[in-house]
Amino acid sequence: MKIIDLEFVENLAIGASLLGAGGGGDPYIGKLLASWAIETYGEPRLFDLSEVPEDAVCVMSASMGAPTVAVERLPGGDELHIAILSLQHYIGKRITHLVGLEIGGMNSMLPIASAARTQLPLVDCDAMGRAFPELQMCTPSLFGKSATPMVLADESGNTVVIDSNSNLKTEKMARQITVEMGAVSYIALYPLSGKELKETMIPGTISFARDIGYEISKSRANRVDVLNSLLKITNGVLLFEGKITDVDRKTHDGFARGTVELAGFGDYTDSKLRVIFQNENLIAELNNRVIATVPDLICLVEPSTCRTITTEELRYGLRTIVIGIPCDSRWRTERGLQLVGPNYFGYDIKFTPVEK
Amino acid sequence: MKIIDLEFVENLAIGASLLGAGGGGDPYIGKLLASWAIETYGEPRLFDLSEVPEDAVCVMSASMGAPTVAVERLPGGDELHIAILSLQHYIGKRITHLVGLEIGGMNSMLPIASAARTQLPLVDCDAMGRAFPELQMCTPSLFGKSATPMVLADESGNTVVIDSNSNLKTEKMARQITVEMGAVSYIALYPLSGKELKETMIPGTISFARDIGYEISKSRANRVDVLNSLLKITNGVLLFEGKITDVDRKTHDGFARGTVELAGFGDYTDSKLRVIFQNENLIAELNNRVIATVPDLICLVEPSTCRTITTEELRYGLRTIVIGIPCDSRWRTERGLQLVGPNYFGYDIKFTPVEK
Repeated sequence: MKIIDLEFVENLAIGASLLGAGGGGDPYIGKLLASWAIETYGEPRLFDLSEVPEDAVCVMSASMGAPTVAVERLPGGDELHIAILSLQHYIGKRITHLVGLEIGGMNSMLPIASAARTQLPLVDCDAMGRAFPELQMCTPSLFGKSATPMVLADESGNTVVIDSNSNLKTEKMARQITVEMGAVSYIALYPLSGKELKETMIPGTISFARDIGYEISKSRANRVDVLNSLLKITNGVLLFEGKITDVDRKTHDGFARGTVELAGFGDYTDSKLRVIFQNENLIAELNNRVIATVPDLICLVEPSTCRTITTEELRYGLRTIVIGIPCDSRWRTERGLQLVGPNYFGYDIKFTPVEK
Repeated sequence: MKIIDLEFVENLAIGASLLGAGGGGDPYIGKLLASWAIETYGEPRLFDLSEVPEDAVCVMSASMGAPTVAVERLPGGDELHIAILSLQHYIGKRITHLVGLEIGGMNSMLPIASAARTQLPLVDCDAMGRAFPELQMCTPSLFGKSATPMVLADESGNTVVIDSNSNLKTEKMARQITVEMGAVSYIALYPLSGKELKETMIPGTISFARDIGYEISKSRANRVDVLNSLLKITNGVLLFEGKITDVDRKTHDGFARGTVELAGFGDYTDSKLRVIFQNENLIAELNNRVIATVPDLICLVEPSTCRTITTEELRYGLRTIVIGIPCDSRWRTERGLQLVGPNYFGYDIKFTPVEK
């Protein structure tokens, strides 16, 4: 068992931003919410997945919708709490453990705020190991677990409970409800027993993200050291170094879609890298040859600090290092690739592990 | 207490079609469902509003969405039952009485099917006294009653529970969920105590619709007699008689909008009537002068039988009698007109009672 203090939150925010793979939203607002909750209600406890009893009643939580809107329409702080209580009422069982749905980006922070407020233990795991744009893209889906009963709540106190046998249908309905709630909702979902949680989740990802953040923040003096320790801790590979020469983006179907082009420096002089994104970075092409694809993580970072550059922040002239990080091995199975591989996102490309 | 048998259903379908004021959908599919349920589970009991105990747990039911789609995608028969059971689970109280939301059109039929299946008593009242296109347009809304908790169900067993403090917000969310459910959903909503039901509903409308149907169907020989008895039973007024010369329609925002023009016969020779509709008939203009508006009922009927012509059935050349029927007096109050008057539908017209 660990204690989540303000320093933990600070490092977690940095690491979670990297695991967002360009998406998942800036954790800044979430960090404010988590820090406020810790100061108000105390430091939450973080338990290893192995410490969770088999009969535990576990519930995941997150925000849904456009991260850009969450920044403009700040949450009141009660939304997620209401969603969790409403789900507890609906399932008719007392919740014993809280779980984060998504470690990448701002959703790493919200479960901490909820754990502080409810005084319930948080479990060190998540259902993605990164950020993904849709709620069926979770490891429990691979094991046939239902995302529902699921509750959506907004800042006006409206709640909606979905009960469905299809996680894809749940995603579609929840997406429409989120639009009606003003483009952001706060959600409690995937109620699982402790046993199911152990079978289906990616363990240790909260500590992992915090460790990444610690590596990035501890030494800004020597950029080579930071990059090397970052690659080491993430099993990552350096894909490219260069300068952004073009950004093309459009918002379509509620997603931020686009491409970014980079011209190489140093070892990459005369090379071009093109990254295609849809909220998250999906595909990296070096001189028109695919070198990395979703579900592996393609991360753009600022060279001197290794801080993440999200897809919203991409702009002409920015110096950038591009690294690839292997995703959780479950995403590389046939079922995993069906759910989150390049084909699902509409690209006729075969997945090849980034380390090859 | 009355018994609802197959003949009752037959007459109710005819009367409910008239009270649809051009909309509400053809009760045919609903009639099949109600008849099948009666043959399978027995005849339901219909209680007067005055017979309902103050502490009764009453729930309304209906279908939501495009009636044209309901005809193509037939309900499996379980949807409404699942919606009602799910609402019972959510409110944590055993439902004692079923209530119809809308007497106009096909929604007059669905609560009968549910009452037969659940063996619960049905209450002789509804929340509109006619058909309206949106779910906040109910008399309980006038008294500040919440439409929620509300459940939507589809034929795949998906359910969604909405809990909101705004009936307009509920309408907007439920509309989007209905679209995701394939343009039709089956809903249970407005859970009210017997006391609240007595205070807020329009009494006797099921019997009233059945009586109208009986008048229309009992004598087809003499059209003058049928029309006169129809006007007498509904307190209606003859507005026009003529032939359809033009129909202009477009589907927009999920509504069937349009206008129909008629050239007069007999007493109305050289006169023109124009009726504007949005699912239901909204406004009637005689020679460019408004003579009837929503929430009063503007009904187009076939001259020889007085059977209703719905807005879907309007076509060039059809001979038509147009009658106006006063709505329930609560719709004519300031709050009532705010909710369902011509201004709400986007027309800068003052409401004038049709009988004047």
